[in-house]
This record gives sequence, C-alpha cells and structure tokens, in this order.
Amino acid sequence: MSHVKDPKLAAQGRLKIEYAESHMPALLKIRADFKKKKPFRGLRIAMALHVTKETAVLVETLQQGGAKVAISSCNPLSTQDDVAAALAKSGTDVFAYKGENKTDYYKFLNKVLDTNPHITIDDGCDLITLIHTKRKNLLKNLIGGCEETTTGINRLHAMERDGALKYPIIAVNDNKTKHLTDNYYGTGQSSWDGILRATNILIAGKTIVVAGYGDCGKGVALRGKGMGAHVIVTEINPFRALQATLDGFRVMKMSEAVRIGDIFITVTGGKHVIAKEHFGKMKSGAILANAGHFDIEIDTVALTKMAKKKRSMRPFLDEYTLAGGGANGKKLYLVADGRLCNLGAAEGHPSEVMALSFAGQALACKYLVDKLNSNEKLPAGVHTLPESIDDYIASLQLNAMGISIDKLTTEQEKYNSGWMEGT
Amino acid sequence: MSHVKDPKLAAQGRLKIEYAESHMPALLKIRADFKKKKPFRGLRIAMALHVTKETAVLVETLQQGGAKVAISSCNPLSTQDDVAAALAKSGTDVFAYKGENKTDYYKFLNKVLDTNPHITIDDGCDLITLIHTKRKNLLKNLIGGCEETTTGINRLHAMERDGALKYPIIAVNDNKTKHLTDNYYGTGQSSWDGILRATNILIAGKTIVVAGYGDCGKGVALRGKGMGAHVIVTEINPFRALQATLDGFRVMKMSEAVRIGDIFITVTGGKHVIAKEHFGKMKSGAILANAGHFDIEIDTVALTKMAKKKRSMRPFLDEYTLAGGGANGKKLYLVADGRLCNLGAAEGHPSEVMALSFAGQALACKYLVDKLNSNEKLPAGVHTLPESIDDYIASLQLNAMGISIDKLTTEQEKYNSGWMEGT
Amino acid sequence: MSHVKDPKLAAQGRLKIEYAESHMPALLKIRADFKKKKPFRGLRIAMALHVTKETAVLVETLQQGGAKVAISSCNPLSTQDDVAAALAKSGTDVFAYKGENKTDYYKFLNKVLDTNPHITIDDGCDLITLIHTKRKNLLKNLIGGCEETTTGINRLHAMERDGALKYPIIAVNDNKTKHLTDNYYGTGQSSWDGILRATNILIAGKTIVVAGYGDCGKGVALRGKGMGAHVIVTEINPFRALQATLDGFRVMKMSEAVRIGDIFITVTGGKHVIAKEHFGKMKSGAILANAGHFDIEIDTVALTKMAKKKRSMRPFLDEYTLAGGGANGKKLYLVADGRLCNLGAAEGHPSEVMALSFAGQALACKYLVDKLNSNEKLPAGVHTLPESIDDYIASLQLNAMGISIDKLTTEQEKYNSGWMEGT
Amino acid sequence: MSHVKDPKLAAQGRLKIEYAESHMPALLKIRADFKKKKPFRGLRIAMALHVTKETAVLVETLQQGGAKVAISSCNPLSTQDDVAAALAKSGTDVFAYKGENKTDYYKFLNKVLDTNPHITIDDGCDLITLIHTKRKNLLKNLIGGCEETTTGINRLHAMERDGALKYPIIAVNDNKTKHLTDNYYGTGQSSWDGILRATNILIAGKTIVVAGYGDCGKGVALRGKGMGAHVIVTEINPFRALQATLDGFRVMKMSEAVRIGDIFITVTGGKHVIAKEHFGKMKSGAILANAGHFDIEIDTVALTKMAKKKRSMRPFLDEYTLAGGGANGKKLYLVADGRLCNLGAAEGHPSEVMALSFAGQALACKYLVDKLNSNEKLPAGVHTLPESIDDYIASLQLNAMGISIDKLTTEQEKYNSGWMEGT
Repeated sequence: MSHVKDPKLAAQGRLKIEYAESHMPALLKIRADFKKKKPFRGLRIAMALHVTKETAVLVETLQQGGAKVAISSCNPLSTQDDVAAALAKSGTDVFAYKGENKTDYYKFLNKVLDTNPHITIDDGCDLITLIHTKRKNLLKNLIGGCEETTTGINRLHAMERDGALKYPIIAVNDNKTKHLTDNYYGTGQSSWDGILRATNILIAGKTIVVAGYGDCGKGVALRGKGMGAHVIVTEINPFRALQATLDGFRVMKMSEAVRIGDIFITVTGGKHVIAKEHFGKMKSGAILANAGHFDIEIDTVALTKMAKKKRSMRPFLDEYTLAGGGANGKKLYLVADGRLCNLGAAEGHPSEVMALSFAGQALACKYLVDKLNSNEKLPAGVHTLPESIDDYIASLQLNAMGISIDKLTTEQEKYNSGWMEGT
Repeated sequence: MSHVKDPKLAAQGRLKIEYAESHMPALLKIRADFKKKKPFRGLRIAMALHVTKETAVLVETLQQGGAKVAISSCNPLSTQDDVAAALAKSGTDVFAYKGENKTDYYKFLNKVLDTNPHITIDDGCDLITLIHTKRKNLLKNLIGGCEETTTGINRLHAMERDGALKYPIIAVNDNKTKHLTDNYYGTGQSSWDGILRATNILIAGKTIVVAGYGDCGKGVALRGKGMGAHVIVTEINPFRALQATLDGFRVMKMSEAVRIGDIFITVTGGKHVIAKEHFGKMKSGAILANAGHFDIEIDTVALTKMAKKKRSMRPFLDEYTLAGGGANGKKLYLVADGRLCNLGAAEGHPSEVMALSFAGQALACKYLVDKLNSNEKLPAGVHTLPESIDDYIASLQLNAMGISIDKLTTEQEKYNSGWMEGT
Repeated sequence: MSHVKDPKLAAQGRLKIEYAESHMPALLKIRADFKKKKPFRGLRIAMALHVTKETAVLVETLQQGGAKVAISSCNPLSTQDDVAAALAKSGTDVFAYKGENKTDYYKFLNKVLDTNPHITIDDGCDLITLIHTKRKNLLKNLIGGCEETTTGINRLHAMERDGALKYPIIAVNDNKTKHLTDNYYGTGQSSWDGILRATNILIAGKTIVVAGYGDCGKGVALRGKGMGAHVIVTEINPFRALQATLDGFRVMKMSEAVRIGDIFITVTGGKHVIAKEHFGKMKSGAILANAGHFDIEIDTVALTKMAKKKRSMRPFLDEYTLAGGGANGKKLYLVADGRLCNLGAAEGHPSEVMALSFAGQALACKYLVDKLNSNEKLPAGVHTLPESIDDYIASLQLNAMGISIDKLTTEQEKYNSGWMEGT
Repeated sequence: MSHVKDPKLAAQGRLKIEYAESHMPALLKIRADFKKKKPFRGLRIAMALHVTKETAVLVETLQQGGAKVAISSCNPLSTQDDVAAALAKSGTDVFAYKGENKTDYYKFLNKVLDTNPHITIDDGCDLITLIHTKRKNLLKNLIGGCEETTTGINRLHAMERDGALKYPIIAVNDNKTKHLTDNYYGTGQSSWDGILRATNILIAGKTIVVAGYGDCGKGVALRGKGMGAHVIVTEINPFRALQATLDGFRVMKMSEAVRIGDIFITVTGGKHVIAKEHFGKMKSGAILANAGHFDIEIDTVALTKMAKKKRSMRPFLDEYTLAGGGANGKKLYLVADGRLCNLGAAEGHPSEVMALSFAGQALACKYLVDKLNSNEKLPAGVHTLPESIDDYIASLQLNAMGISIDKLTTEQEKYNSGWMEGT
C-alpha cells in the first residue's frame, strides 16, 4: 500500500533511522511511555511531513502508541528515499519520493487522507486545506490536528478569522521547545553548515549581512560571529534593529550593506529582500544564501535575467556573471538555487533539534486524545499546548543529557506567589 | 515646598543631570515634542521613583510638556541628594533624601499625593497602594497611572484579580524597549560593574554561578562569559535550564554548584536561593552577590549567624569567617550587604538604558491623556502600550545613534499579509 | 611526461582551480609581479605537495615567473585527480593520483627529482630526505628549498644538529602569516566543518574535549565555543593549561574528561592521546575526531580490538560497539578513521588560508634566487624569511580585502626608537 | 628609617595586604618555600616598584626568604599610602608617598640605594640607571637585578648595545606568565573597569576604536566585544591588522575611525596616536581613554588648546568643549587626564595577575642567587628565566586553582622527540 522510489534502499534507510534515534532520546522516552499505555489504540493518523530520518522516528513512536500511520511528504524535494523505503518495509503506508511532480504530490496527500484519519499532522497546512476544500466528509471523524510551522499557523489564523476552520488544531510551532530552539539553535548552525559545504570559504574576516533579526536571524548572526565574521544586520522592525545594535552588530539599510558584504543570508520569510536593484552594487565574488523560507527572498528571477553567463562551480553553488553597465563582469555566487541553504546544501536541522520539535508533535496527539477521553474535546480553532507539556519536553531532554535542576521549596513557592509586602 | 538633604548640592546635581541628558537623546527628542505641544498643560503628576539623575531628566521632560510634578523616592536608599537639590532648586516639589527612615518615607509619599494628582508614576506600586487604601478620595481625579517594574505589575495583577484596582495603569515594564533591554543589557553590565568595584578581582578563569536564567540572568551570564569566566547556571524552570545548556553553559543544582563556584550571583526575584545549607559547602574565598531584587535572595541572616567574625574588607565588601564543623575558618565575601550589587556597589543602570525605559514612561503619560482627549478613556485595569509606541521608542533611539533601517515595499507588505498559496 | 588518473577530468579540475584563484588574490598579485619580472627564468622547481586546487594556483604562479615545475604528491591520499589532470593538460609535469601505493609514491618523488631541480618545495621533507640519501648528485645544482610544515621543520632541525643538511631550506611554516593563520583560523574552522559533515549533530549544548591548546587547539576550542559548546581542554604544558583556564575553558586530565565529553578532538601532534584505557570510560555515543597530525593521536588499533562490532553509519563515520566489562554495548563513533577530520571528512583549509601560506612559498623561492643574484647565497641550514616579507604578505591580503592601515609619522618613529627618558 | 605619608594608616593598609594575599596563592606558595630555605639570608634587596598591596605581598615574600628590603616608588602617583604605612610598621624601609615631587622621587631612589643592595628590582629601569650614572660604586656588590616592564627592558637593550650595562638583569617581563597574562587578561579587564567607573555608560551598542592590536590591544578589543560593543581596530603593522580582521573586527585608518567611534582607547606605547587633526572630526560626546603607556598617546596638550571650555563632569572624567570651525561646540570626554585609565580611574591589575608577575620577580631573585651559589654567576647583560621556571609559576597557579593536567608517558615522550619516519 506504499509508493516509494526503491524498496531496496530499506536497509540503508533503517541505519539512518537508527542513527537519528541515538540523538533523539527525549522522543524515545515518550515512545517507551506510549508503548506501555497505547494511547492511540484504534486511531489512524495522517501525516504530511518532510520524510526524513527524524520524521521516521516520530512515525514509529506514534505506532508504538497503537496508531496506524500513513504519511506523504509536505515538499516535493525533501524526501529521503532510503528512509521512505525503510518505513514502507516495516509496515507504514508511505507515499513519497524525492522529486515528486505536482500531480503525484496531491495524489499522495489524498492517498493519506483515504485512510479516514482521526488526527492529521501537517507542516504547512496542506492536509488541513485539502480537508476543508475537497474532503469535507472527513471532518466528522477528526479528533484534531497538529501543525508544525509558522507559515502553516499563519494560514490557520486566517482560516479562523474567516470562520472557516472546522476542527481543533494544535500549533506545535508555538511551543518554546520548538520555535525558540529550532529557529535559533537549529537554523543558526545548519545554515552555516550549508554555506560551508557549498562554498568552502573561510568565514573569519568576512563581512556577512544577515537580513532579518528574528529568532532565525539572531541564530545565524550569533554563529557567524562565533566563526569570526564581522556581522551586519538589516531589519524593517525598529526594536529588532535596536536589539541587533545592542548585541554588537552593525545595522544599516540593505542598499548600503550590498556595497560591503561578502556573504548575504536572508532570514526574513519575506519576498525580494535582495532584489534587482541590489545585485549590480555588490562586490564581485559576493555569495548569496537564503535561510528564511521560500526561494523568493532573493530575487533569483531578476538575477538570472541580469546574468550574461551562469556556471555551476561546485555542488549547490552557481556563478552568475553580470552583464551591462557598471556591473559588467561582476560575479555573484548563489547557494542552492536560492532555496533553503541548510536543506539544500546540507542536511537540515540536526536530530537533537527535531527531537524537541517532534516530542511536541507526539504529545500534541496525546493531548487531543486525552481531552477527548476526559470529555473536554477541544473546540474548532487554533490551540496551544499547556506550558506544563512544553516544560515536560524540556525536562525529558535535560534528563537525557544527565542534567538535574533545582526545585522550589514550599517556603520559596509561597514567597513567589504572595505580593503583599511593599517597601 | 521641598524636603531635600542639602540645597547647596544643587550645582553638582545639575552637572549630573546634564551628563545624563547627553546619553538620553531619545528622551530629549520626546521632550522637544512635549515642549511644542504641551500635552500636560494643567495636569499634576505624582511620582515615586528612584531620585537619580536619569529620573530628573524624566521629571523635566514632563514639565516641559506642561505638567506640574511632585516626586518622592520609591526606596529609602536610592536618592542622589545632589540631584534632589538640583530638582528642588529649579522648582520641582521634591521629598527625598538618601537614608530615609520609614516614617519619612511614607510621609513623603503622602506629601506627593497631597498635590491631588491626575497621573501617578510608580516603581513598585507604593503610590497606587496608598491611594487604594488610605487616599481613596484621590481616585475621582485620576486619569491613570504608570508602573515601572515586574514586582509592581505582579501586585497590580493581584489587585485586578481581586477586583480592587480602581483606575487604569500602564504596565511600562511590559514594553520590549523596557524589559528586553533594561533587564538584559542593563543588568548584564551594571551587576558586573558593581562586583568589580567591590572586589577588584580578575574575572577571567573564575567559575561563576548564575542563579536564574531569565532576562536578567541571561545578561549576567553572557557578560560573565564575555569577561572570560567559566559560567554555571542554576534554574528551577526546565526550559530555561535547557536554553542555558544550549547557550554553552553548564547547568546543575545549587547544592552541587556551591562546591565549585568562585563567584555566586543570584538573579531570581526569589528567596533564599543561596541558603543556610549552602554556605558551609562553599570554597573559602567565595564571593556572593545579588543582582535580582530584594536582599533575601542570599540568606544573609543565616550567614551572619554562622559567622564567628565579620570584617569590612573594602567598600561594599564584607568578609564572613565561618565557625564550626568542617567549615571552620572558611571565609566568604558578601557584596553590598546582599542588596542589589549594581545599585549598591556601582551606579545602577547606565543612562542609555534608562532613556528607553523613561521614554516609555513619558509616552505612557501622553497615551493616558490622548485616550482621555479622544473620549476613549481607559477602563480601570492593567494596560500595555500599543506596539507602535514601543517601536517608536526604538526608532527614536536608532535615530539618535544615526542608524537607518529598511522599509517594506508595497509589494512586500502585500506578500507578507497574504497566505493563500500552499506548496 | 605526466602520470595522472584520468586526463578527461581536466575541464572539471580547471573550474576548481579558477574557483580557488578567486579566493587567493594575494597570491595572484604575486603572480602578476612574477609575470612581469620572470625571476625564475631558466630554473626548475621540484615539488612534493598535496595536489589540490590551491597548490595548482601556486604551481602556475611559479610558472608565470618563468619556472619549469614538476610536482608529485606528499601524501598518498590527498591528490585531487581532476586538478592533477588540469595541471597536466596545461603543461606541468604531474606525477600523482589519489590512492597511490608506496611504490608509486616513491617512484613519483624520483620522477620529480629527475628534472634536476634548482629549488625544492616540500611538505614533510620527503624530497629533501631523498636527495640527502639516494640522490646526492643533485645537491650541486640546488639553490635551496622550502618546507611547509612543523613536522618537516622538526626533521630539518634534527638533520642540522647532525651536520647532515647540505643546502639552505626556508622554513615557510615559521612565517606568522603561515602558522598563526593556518593553524588557528584554518584548523579552527575546517575541523568543525569535517565533524559536522561526518556527524550532522547539534554542537550547541554539547561538551567537547579539546586535547592540546597550541595554535590549532586554541582555534578548535574557540570555534567550538562560538557554536555553543561547553569546552574542556586537556594539556601537558602548564602555561597553555593556564591560558585555557583564563580563556574561560575548563581544564582537567583526560582521564577525567573521558567521563563527561560528548565530542573529543585531538590536536596535539602526539601519540595515543586518547588511548586504550580511555575508551571504556566514555559515554555511549561519544564522537572521536583527530585534528592534529598523524592517525595515531587516537589509538584506533586498540579501539578496533576492543570492539565486538563495527559499522559504517555515514560517510566518514564508523560506529564501534565495545565488548566486555562495564563497557559492554557502549557505542563510540570515529570520524574519518582517526585521520585528519578536516581533510578526511571535509575539504581541508579554505583557499584564503592557503593563499597566505603559498604566498610565503612563492616569495621564499624568490628570496632564494634574489640572495643568489646578489651574491649572498644562503649557507646550508634552516632559514626563516625576513619579517618584512611576512609583513608584505599580510599587506597584500589587506589590500585584496580593501583595508588600509596607518603609518607612523616621522615624529612617532623617532619617539618609538628613543628610550632616553625615565620617569 | 622610613618616609611615609601617615603611619596611622597602617591598620587599613594591613587589611588591604591581607585581601591581596587571599588572591595571590601562587606567590604565597613561593613564600612558604622561601621561609623554609631562606635563600636570601644576609642579602639586601633594593626595589623601585609601585607601592601597592600586591607589591607588599612580594616584599614580605622576599623578607620571609631572609632578605632585608628597602623600597621606593617607581611612579610619583602610584603609592597607596596605607600600604606604605603598613609595610613601614612591620619593619620594611619604605620611602614613598602618593604625589611625590621630583626631588623627593630621586631622593627616595637614592635612599633605597644607600642600603648597598645585592639585588635591585625595577619597574622602568630607574634604579639601574642611577647606579650606572651616579652610584657606580654600588656595582661591585651587586649580584644582579630584575626588571618588570617592556619600557625598562627596551632601555636595557639600548644600554647593552652600547656596552654600558655592567651587571646581569633578568627581564621578568619576558616570562610568558607575565607578558601573555598581564597584558592580555589584565589590561583587557582593568581598562574597561576604569572606563566604566569614569563614565558609567552602556558599552553594548557602542562603536569602540582600539588603537593598537598587540597583546594589550587584543585584550581590550576582546573584552569590548564581550560587553556588546562593535569594535574597530587601527594598526600600523600589517600582520596585526590582518589578525584583527580575521578575529572579526573592522580595521581602518584612524583618520576614518575618528568619524564613527563612540569610545577611543589607545594601547600602542606610542605618541600622539590620537592627534590634533583628529579631535575636530569626532562625534560630539566621544570618550577618549589611554590604556597604553605614557600620557602622550592622546595629544592632550593639543586638545586643551583647542577647547574653549573644560569642566570636570565626574571623578576622572573631563569634558572639553571645542571651539572654532566646524567643531564649534563639540564635546569630547577625556578619562583620567589621558593617563592609564586602569590605574587612574580604577585600581590597576587585579591581584591574580600581579601574583603571576611577582612570582616571576621572586623566582628571578632566587635564580640570581642560585646561579651565584653554583658558581655560574650570570654575566652582565639582559637575561631571561629558563622556561622551566615560567612553567613552574603556571603550575603553582594551576595548583592553587585546584586544576590537574596530564603528563606525557615515556612512550609519548619518545615519540615526540623522534623524527625518523617519513610518509
């Protein structure tokens, strides 16, 4: 009942999954608990996530809890075919291969929904959208759903505002253990990993321009500094610009920064942050990478038009030679076609980061079921997990790292909750 | 109509105020605006704030806006007598001197309230409490109030829960330009400044233990690392403990940390974080400092009881020689009597930090008046300023620093607000 | 007259060389100068260096200066076959392929010497040794030689002590622009690049153990800290241990560190720094990497014997499952077979670093010739370049980066050279 | 036989000395050893050092070793009168008070020499110069001398070149435990301490300009970065400029830096690094501090001439209001009259740093005596201590900090000393 590229890759995929497991102990602890208590006995879960080794660990965690899981990808390019094969071999319904065309992409989403799921898990809201448009009959069976990303949650809030959202969704991205770790530590490291693999240049002494100083941008700037770069930040928000300044970075407009940067990294979630008017002003040799979201943060369409020559210099690194005007002959280097450089040129976030994120997914599923079982079924709408679950995930990770922390004494708790005394 | 220590200190105080002004350009910009528009014409403002050079800049900013200001202190020890004299000389009603006894402290609060104010500004909620208990007749005249600190806001929320709060209060502390800069950059620097002045020791190579990894603790840990220390963090919250770990710090229980720390800094807001059972386990020579809130974070009462000898080694540094048991003869060093080390042994936050905080106070007063004038008077309760005002403060500061930032194009704005497209 | 793997790889190799050139502007400046002045007209240069894209830029720089160059590798595994093909195609005598056997390795060294060179360039002293043992007849024609590494220079000093060294050798490694940049910035970055590619783990929050705090170890520790790790240093030298402490790192014996480290990196140049007795005490999951010199820093022979199972988990990452005793079932992960992790699992130093090092090689060759031409032929022995040449290399690099620096005024120079005045 | 300001300050001075001792355990260890072995029995030591609490610990260490010590100051302003009183009270011959005039300064040097010393200890070469000019008859009795600073050693090398130096001097400054710790960690911290005490400004977000990137400048730049500043470096040496760049700092000419800096710190040892032509181009509000050597690094004479008004704003901080031209009304702030800001506005190096430096002094004295006793009396000239003594000092400090390090096994030592094997 699966559709994967090559079943023979299963052994290699299984090795990868095993390696991922060894760096995801917090999630394995949840798995052990699920195995004992079987919270999902009799339930079907439909997933549209990047089919990677870490996702496989989540899938098998939910299966140990009694769930029947069907999975498709949430991105045509992100499937690891060997992992898909391994999952398929051990009984998961997998519909995914690297390089899906649009037809297959949507066919697979529908395949997954054909299982008539009780719970959906999305990264970007595609299953939810499909259910609310073409598969409305599935709504009656659904307990709830989980959404992984900012982008997806923004779409959900739009649906909520329009009164269109018909079942409860947990915004897993809102977990501190998700957006404050994944974005900051995850993107901070993996973006540089991608840039280094693509370019192999020395970072020390380079002037890097980080566009956007949100959690992701903060991580990218910090790690750049940690590697010896001189860091410039561009921002549209005055408070974040002030933070960047107080963190020791230079802040200026992109129109100025383009003249002095050696490496440009967009981390905005926006569009054309590096645009047509910028390319010609850059230094020859400048490197352009995107660590934000879609491949429109750098206007690669304009770049291509401006170039009289394009060469692939190394894997995931293209050289554009500009034509015309003062820019004549200038060479710019684009990492991973302007797509996410950490996924395009390296391997995305390390397993440790995904462990925290997917512990959130696993416990969100359990939360939906627990609420149902205790007759507190959540209403349609976007929900966040209670802070206690977020803290529990952090505790599991600390435990796995062998770290113990303090507890308040009764006296201290009493002091903290009372506010009677003045000066 | 003022009560200050020594009017002859006015010239020296004026010099200090002038020096502060030169580092508070964002607030001066607001002052220039107030001077033109006179938003507070005919209004009386009652303040209970630390009477420092920075506060003086706020007072005179509100006066330029047309207000009549009366001020007392919010802490018996924090008044700068020369600044108080300077304010009194130029016509402010000042009731404050360094080292007030409790009788005078409350007498002065009442003096300030005797002006029958339209607006109150508190740092710790003492005016508000007095109004709601013994001066209820003032309520009818009040437009609103402003509160500066976390502690005060916690008290206000308690009042709100009990239905006791009878007029609108702006929680200025909730401004990003307040709690994300004051706590992190301000405390981060000024605590170390206090410790250095008190001890004059080399920080490089020392093992420092930071108790608490909130915004203040994060700042203290970061600056400690920046000076070459090896940093240990203790926490009671698992997520903050995880953040500390991922930021490269060691995390452990205080009961372990006491055995290896050279310098201990409490930044919790709690009670007895370093307690009776800890002192005897410390290394001889250990230094204890509090950068949190009240002087009960370190149990100095227990420390005094355990000591067979106490000597003042340097200004703001006492040596305690422990008696009895294994601790016999061990020496511990306490900074500034366990009170806030940045205020006790140095000069509190730099003017630049207070400029942001007090820009918030000034604009909060104006917001209260604007709402009244546009017939949208705020209801009783705790309010936060709109994000646009917070961003405006950040913009003023950026301007003052000569920093320009980007603006979204129309196309970019449109892209950011639309969420139609899926994969 | 060349022996390379596959001449058809020449186009791809030429692209690599071109990419390297774009990050080696200081060396290109020297090339332009050589091209004009032809200092090596009529001279033959024999090289045994890693045949990489950066080395190719050096080769062609010397050729532009009039030299005839023959090159073999200095390591059986480090040849880039495409680069070798490109060099051969454009007329260099190349004798090298990746994975040479010992016979070919020495045959190729001899081939290179068959050109009866005027100058030798070594990385590890193999040409020099061969000349002094089996090819003594070449000595009469030799003007001098250049040596790239610490290891080679140590061998040369030993020869010098024995009176065995018969021609002058420039110790290029002694250039500040070589050992203070290559070791510190180069190794600092490229070792982590190798570890990340091999393991793809999150560095933030990990405890890393750096064995050795020389220039290389300092770089590795600094970059580890910059990525969010908690760093432990082990040392045998008390002063370097003290430096590590004052730099904020923990210092302890390896026998203690093995119990708490997540990642171990040897950077000592020594032998069995991580030894038989250490493996069993490590945490399961520990990662072992060598960034020092030979593959004996970690005792991989003992590790193999202690393992009951060995699996290749990822490219350049092997898992060893320990047998017996308390260690039963513990898993350790070895990067790149215990060989240099930056060369084994990544791409060695970035071009920018090699540009400085090879500028030293190019100018050392010129220095030998200049001395000869001015009748100051250097005597047999180990020589260092004058500091002015070292500074000139730094100047070229600064120029290439668009950086201008100050010059002393006459008055300042005079002040600096006079020491007449007391207090 | 002493001349101090006020003998009644002795008790307070003794407390200071005791506090210093508690942070100088390495030196106390040497003291314990001296006490047992009395290496200086019957010897007289003449000192001209800053008479501070740390120096007092050195004096009493030598006395415990049997020496008779006489001390004067090496700087008219650096004597701590209470410490001088305490030393005098316990029997040292002290000739020093804070604010000596030139007559007394030289009278005191002569007083100290009147003791007909066997050993001299200098900081700046004043005793040595006096001996070689006006007190030549003392030479016959002298075993040797010790010199503390770079400046002094430069003067000694000049004497040596002229054949004028008549007895052996140990260049204690050349110890790694001196110049690599004192300059880097000591100056790095204490300069910022001085600047903060003088100005109380926020460092985060400021642009600081560090003139000079030697060991001192490296420390100042690093700690500035650690406090959140954006750091610019100016240099005259290309290699150090390159290092600064690769360390992530911006490098430019002073003539450019003056336009953008908020704080300027000179660390060059040179003259007029910030000169007449620079002041008018600075931003109003700029702060000027010297952390190098003499008070001529900033041309304060020119600054005074250019100012139409000078006010003392705070202790150790003067405001200069510039007159004329475009600079009209601009305000510049000078820390500690342009003298060393760490000594002028704070307390100089922490005791921990001086412990290492003075352990070198104590062991240098012993080395002179040991050589004499083993009939290897050192010849006249400048000498450095054997590296083993330097390493021993580092070991003492590590011991005092409770840190153990590794030792080479016999097998490892053998490997390290052999260089037979090629590839």
